[in-house]
Amino acid sequence: MADVAREAAVSKTTASDALRGHGRVSGATRDAVEAAALRLGYSPNRNARSLRTSVTETVALHIPEVLTSAEYYMSFVFGVTEQATRAGLNVTMISSGHLPHRGALPQVDGLVLCDPMAGDPVVEALMNSGLPVVTAERYVGDKESTGVVCSDHETTTVELLDHLRDMGAVRPALLASDSTAERAATVLDTYRRWCVRNGLPDTVHKAPFGSPPEVPRAEVARMLAGSPETDAVVCAADGAAVTVLPEIRAAGRTVGKDLLLASCVDSTTMRLSDPPITAIDLRPRDMGAECARLLCDILSGRSPRGTVRSLPITLNTRASTGLPRP
Amino acid sequence: MADVAREAAVSKTTASDALRGHGRVSGATRDAVEAAALRLGYSPNRNARSLRTSVTETVALHIPEVLTSAEYYMSFVFGVTEQATRAGLNVTMISSGHLPHRGALPQVDGLVLCDPMAGDPVVEALMNSGLPVVTAERYVGDKESTGVVCSDHETTTVELLDHLRDMGAVRPALLASDSTAERAATVLDTYRRWCVRNGLPDTVHKAPFGSPPEVPRAEVARMLAGSPETDAVVCAADGAAVTVLPEIRAAGRTVGKDLLLASCVDSTTMRLSDPPITAIDLRPRDMGAECARLLCDILSGRSPRGTVRSLPITLNTRASTGLPRP
Repeated sequence: MADVAREAAVSKTTASDALRGHGRVSGATRDAVEAAALRLGYSPNRNARSLRTSVTETVALHIPEVLTSAEYYMSFVFGVTEQATRAGLNVTMISSGHLPHRGALPQVDGLVLCDPMAGDPVVEALMNSGLPVVTAERYVGDKESTGVVCSDHETTTVELLDHLRDMGAVRPALLASDSTAERAATVLDTYRRWCVRNGLPDTVHKAPFGSPPEVPRAEVARMLAGSPETDAVVCAADGAAVTVLPEIRAAGRTVGKDLLLASCVDSTTMRLSDPPITAIDLRPRDMGAECARLLCDILSGRSPRGTVRSLPITLNTRASTGLPRP
Repeated sequence: MADVAREAAVSKTTASDALRGHGRVSGATRDAVEAAALRLGYSPNRNARSLRTSVTETVALHIPEVLTSAEYYMSFVFGVTEQATRAGLNVTMISSGHLPHRGALPQVDGLVLCDPMAGDPVVEALMNSGLPVVTAERYVGDKESTGVVCSDHETTTVELLDHLRDMGAVRPALLASDSTAERAATVLDTYRRWCVRNGLPDTVHKAPFGSPPEVPRAEVARMLAGSPETDAVVCAADGAAVTVLPEIRAAGRTVGKDLLLASCVDSTTMRLSDPPITAIDLRPRDMGAECARLLCDILSGRSPRGTVRSLPITLNTRASTGLPRP
């Protein structure tokens, strides 16, 4: 720290305050101190911080290996890493692998699990590790996580379905995911209850979680052939809505006109699709950051075990669900 | 280890061999020992391994925060993590942030840098850390990395351009990336030399690395308006080829017929585009695994500093560059 202070030409107190985010330090001074610390390779990790239970000053991060959700998960990783780094914690990636490698559990203070799926042996081992675990969405297995950050998928799914109805759809169908993560079940339940409430029959096809994109494609082709009255399709799985576009065209339907199309997960691909696709922005980077923040708060005793925090999500309406009526 | 052996009902030697991948252990026994280790939360990291210079048994991983390349980078992360985990090493993510946070450098044995860009202050700090650094592709800044895994982009780019010529293109244009990573420059140089060799004028437009997808879109619109003789477009940047499809249609051109389209980076999006887009498979997961393997080999002294390894890449031809001629 003395070296950093000298390099940045400030006092030791100022350098320390700047690096820990304490005290009154101007932006320019903080930048200078951070630059000096970077040049000297100074690491704040060894320094006293407020983590009561910290031993390793490291948290582990587990995400499902599902490439169709790469943008969601990569954003989540960036969010966790940035927030943990700010708190002086390292982030260790846990390989979700197909089998756990040599049964290794890393030595960490706590865990962040993104979309933990019941039945995944790695997830089960991590949930049973005895370490504090924060999950993005609730874990639906038979173990409670120490903290949860979750979003209100029910309200947003209803908002999406109401939007489809307002845009003229009378027979919306759902291409559901059979993931054992919480969101998949919430979307399916919400859709079914919405259909009952609106006096509409439901049409549900399922694509296994993480299946290659050919699977939702084939399901939508079957759906449009078997239920030609379908006038809107909601795709629960990340990425699916874009991959089914060719099948919709092949069925002689026009997205945004005689067939509305929406995705339960927004992404760059949805935004840039032709036509752009209405989708729910799950804010994965903010979700990752909030999970890291909650884990830090639990580790430091600032938040109690069992804390549940909510991350707001929003519906982005685009041309795939038609133009607003005059 | 004794507990693991008891839990798996094998000898300590067998348990140890199974977890370290040594000796003759049947697949069933290894699975049983790994499952036992997982149940007991046993970590092999504290155990003696062959790393001569290992202190932290952790390697750090830095990737650029570019969401248009999310699938590439997420695959790379999975590859590094799986391979490092196999070798008993933890993988710590380094936030590439917009500014380094508090100048923190994690305490690790070595670093893997994916697509290190000259001029990125975090990358420069990591290159100057004095730690062993393996880079995916060469670092073009003024520092040598300890090890490099790279692919032969020149040969594959020539293969792609020859393919376009064979499919009838006489005026291929390049939508280049101005990234300071090595690949961008190689693709641009190779394209220019190929044009000279084939007696063709070159048409190059540039989109800044990591720019929002609207930028390549606008560039392609400008290209087709300003150089209407263009009959093939090669997009260097990950994801760009799909995002420019609407502009190509808006210009009254048909991909795969009067305009061939190809991407220098393959992805699920390219494979599932309508039409599917010819692209170079950079094998990001294998690239990540090979980087981790090389770093382990350098740390353990099995490979000398300065080792350069090659990762083969392949061209996937699809409908966007037309059907093969009879």
